[in-house]
Amino acid sequence: MSKEIPYKIYLEESEMPKQWYNLRADMKNKPAPLLNPETLQPMTKEELSAIFCEELAAQELDETNPYIDIPQEIADFYKMYRPAPLVRAYCLEKKLQTPAKIYYKFEGNNTSGSHKLNSAIAQAYYAKKQGLKGVTTETGAGQWGTALSMACSYFELDCKVYMVKLSYEQKPFRREVMRTYGASVTPSPSMETKVGRKILADHPGTGGSLGCAISEAVEKASETEGYRYVLGSVLNQVMLHQTIIGLETKAALDKYDVTPDIIIGCAGGGSNLGGLIAPFMGEKIRGEKDYRFIAVEPATCPSLTRGKFAYDYCDTGMVCPLAKMYTLGSNYMPAPTHAGGLRYHGMSPILSQLYADGLMEAVTVNQTEVFAAAEEFARVEGILPAPESSHAIKVAIDEAMKCKETGEEKTIVFGLTGTGYFDMFAYERFHDGKMVDYVPTEEDLAKGFARIPKLDL
Amino acid sequence: MSKEIPYKIYLEESEMPKQWYNLRADMKNKPAPLLNPETLQPMTKEELSAIFCEELAAQELDETNPYIDIPQEIADFYKMYRPAPLVRAYCLEKKLQTPAKIYYKFEGNNTSGSHKLNSAIAQAYYAKKQGLKGVTTETGAGQWGTALSMACSYFELDCKVYMVKLSYEQKPFRREVMRTYGASVTPSPSMETKVGRKILADHPGTGGSLGCAISEAVEKASETEGYRYVLGSVLNQVMLHQTIIGLETKAALDKYDVTPDIIIGCAGGGSNLGGLIAPFMGEKIRGEKDYRFIAVEPATCPSLTRGKFAYDYCDTGMVCPLAKMYTLGSNYMPAPTHAGGLRYHGMSPILSQLYADGLMEAVTVNQTEVFAAAEEFARVEGILPAPESSHAIKVAIDEAMKCKETGEEKTIVFGLTGTGYFDMFAYERFHDGKMVDYVPTEEDLAKGFARIPKLDL
Repeated sequence: MSKEIPYKIYLEESEMPKQWYNLRADMKNKPAPLLNPETLQPMTKEELSAIFCEELAAQELDETNPYIDIPQEIADFYKMYRPAPLVRAYCLEKKLQTPAKIYYKFEGNNTSGSHKLNSAIAQAYYAKKQGLKGVTTETGAGQWGTALSMACSYFELDCKVYMVKLSYEQKPFRREVMRTYGASVTPSPSMETKVGRKILADHPGTGGSLGCAISEAVEKASETEGYRYVLGSVLNQVMLHQTIIGLETKAALDKYDVTPDIIIGCAGGGSNLGGLIAPFMGEKIRGEKDYRFIAVEPATCPSLTRGKFAYDYCDTGMVCPLAKMYTLGSNYMPAPTHAGGLRYHGMSPILSQLYADGLMEAVTVNQTEVFAAAEEFARVEGILPAPESSHAIKVAIDEAMKCKETGEEKTIVFGLTGTGYFDMFAYERFHDGKMVDYVPTEEDLAKGFARIPKLDL
Repeated sequence: MSKEIPYKIYLEESEMPKQWYNLRADMKNKPAPLLNPETLQPMTKEELSAIFCEELAAQELDETNPYIDIPQEIADFYKMYRPAPLVRAYCLEKKLQTPAKIYYKFEGNNTSGSHKLNSAIAQAYYAKKQGLKGVTTETGAGQWGTALSMACSYFELDCKVYMVKLSYEQKPFRREVMRTYGASVTPSPSMETKVGRKILADHPGTGGSLGCAISEAVEKASETEGYRYVLGSVLNQVMLHQTIIGLETKAALDKYDVTPDIIIGCAGGGSNLGGLIAPFMGEKIRGEKDYRFIAVEPATCPSLTRGKFAYDYCDTGMVCPLAKMYTLGSNYMPAPTHAGGLRYHGMSPILSQLYADGLMEAVTVNQTEVFAAAEEFARVEGILPAPESSHAIKVAIDEAMKCKETGEEKTIVFGLTGTGYFDMFAYERFHDGKMVDYVPTEEDLAKGFARIPKLDL
């Protein structure tokens, strides 16, 4: 006899995961190592430690330990906003009149408004533990910058955020949240760095780009004593921290003897999807259970579905290490009409390897259908979803509607990564019928592919 | 032996309150009845039913039933965002180095971002049950309008919001959230109503006012078949619905054998404070336990602390019923430099009576100290508070610091009514040192007092 499932499943503090899960330990084909862009040799712990804190460098390379203890200080911070609820979408099911059972893991119940905080607090902790003074980073829409500001404020670390100038001007609210948490926010390009001054000289009045902001943040960290640069997605260490999402989800489902059939997440750099699916993927790899995993990408930035699996630069400036991943080329930019995030040119090496090995599916969706799904969801489930998260909503609804046709009572779990409070300009364009879709042509993609280096490895 | 208190206490669904608590049943001095502005006689159920749904009119008048069942449909909606967590502010206590134990009831974990949803869903439910087509209301900053939009969307009711024009233009995000939930949002004054057309003719280019928006909403409801006007605070019915806050808080504290010494809430119209304290106040009135209750007002809108306890109009237009309450006069406007809400000229008749009977204290605070407290709180507790809620934070910190001086281990509970995502312009002014305080002079207050009617009752 199955237990009645509440609307929201909250774990007790005592049931919360005490370790992150390192999926690489169970992967048969390990993700390819990061390469030093100068030597084309795998990055060593020493080389990585010049960029990241030492413990994070160790985590980046660790392919053997399946579980890594969550330090008590991080666990204490997690308690302030975790466990995140696993919600049974009863109202959405009713609206769709589907026999499918839909659950979502909601990561938006914290002030940063997204799952990014799970890794921000870990990266800030290790920086503090190493005695650093501060960290630098870049932010586009601002989710990552906000999360990092909160984390640094908690550990009393200096936090320097380079925010794409166009976002800085168009998203003043995000900027002010970061300032509330004591971060300094600089519109990029700025006069503070060599690279910023050069870009401003070459392109006066530019609105900036993520690639430029990364370059400024990296330069600032490398030239300032006691600072490191931190990143909110793509890296193995970030995937590791984000497994808290999947571990909590699995614990909550296990508590009610529920086994999902399909697990769905949006995919930009891959941190939320990687974190959500990790413990389930481990079971699949070990042959204990089978699940369908679906990565959802915006049609305008289709790295998994239309990219190349190759070594490529992680940054537009081509100064960071190379990663083997599905990539659209380091100069690829999604259409300027694209509203949400999920605009990174590559994909986490871990997820890339899983996809290459046929362990995961990927689909693309258009943004107008994403916003329509977001609005349908908001009206019945109450939560106003972030555009990124709404990619997963769209595909969860699609799968639930297939169940309606076939009569199958599948259990669908998706990641609701965050809230859309700071994305109302995009919602406004959608309401006013001004939002457009854009699918890149083969020619558009060819330009990006041309920049992927031809390496003789 | 006391149990260890988790960071957040969540009730199980089975522990959630099944009834609202009607404090009036236990009050020795009942709040004075609403008066018909034409006859000066108490409003009858029939008269109230022309304005409100019948069941809400009955709730407005009910002074005898101590408990009123929460209809299942409302309870189901509550499950989507309730129980709200009762949070032990361990990090704030540590920061303040106080022996006080601080708890806050967090009502911001829903898309409307505040406690307003607790009553909005009830009012929408009764409107639907009565077969109405829709409701009208006014909104200033937008919390109430957002909450009502969500509630109406859920019950598929039409929702027409008159939004103060200045807010409509300056807070486009709030407006778009309401549109996402299907509400029509009209900047007020508008050409849609007689009163709006008159105001526009007399004052071309005006930014509007709450009083004007109320007048338009009331006119629209009274002239449209199948519509009623709804209000988000002040009324007895609203206080009743908001007792869900206090009932959950009490159940959570009882679960861990915790008895608060001081309970603090911000007070504008009084709905959150009234809801939070109700079950505790009932115990105090019945002589079972003693508590200190503190209402916190902005210095610029001090209805309890500096107002008159008298019958006054509930609206600036002086067409709505009269209520006996602490009031600054129906034409009173807080200083234009005032950032948050809590700008209503009067106070809930229930809270007014409790204050008159010496059962509750009231204090005022200035907005710069409120924002400083908000920022201090955000940095250690993570949550970005609404300016309104931050009034309570300020006084909770003050009380905790008194405990630090005396060494007393008092237990302090305060209401954290909502989040500040849509108030970042105010935070920006604070960060930039441009926020100013304003305390009204006796002359300022005298202008409002002059408008309080001299009734021969």
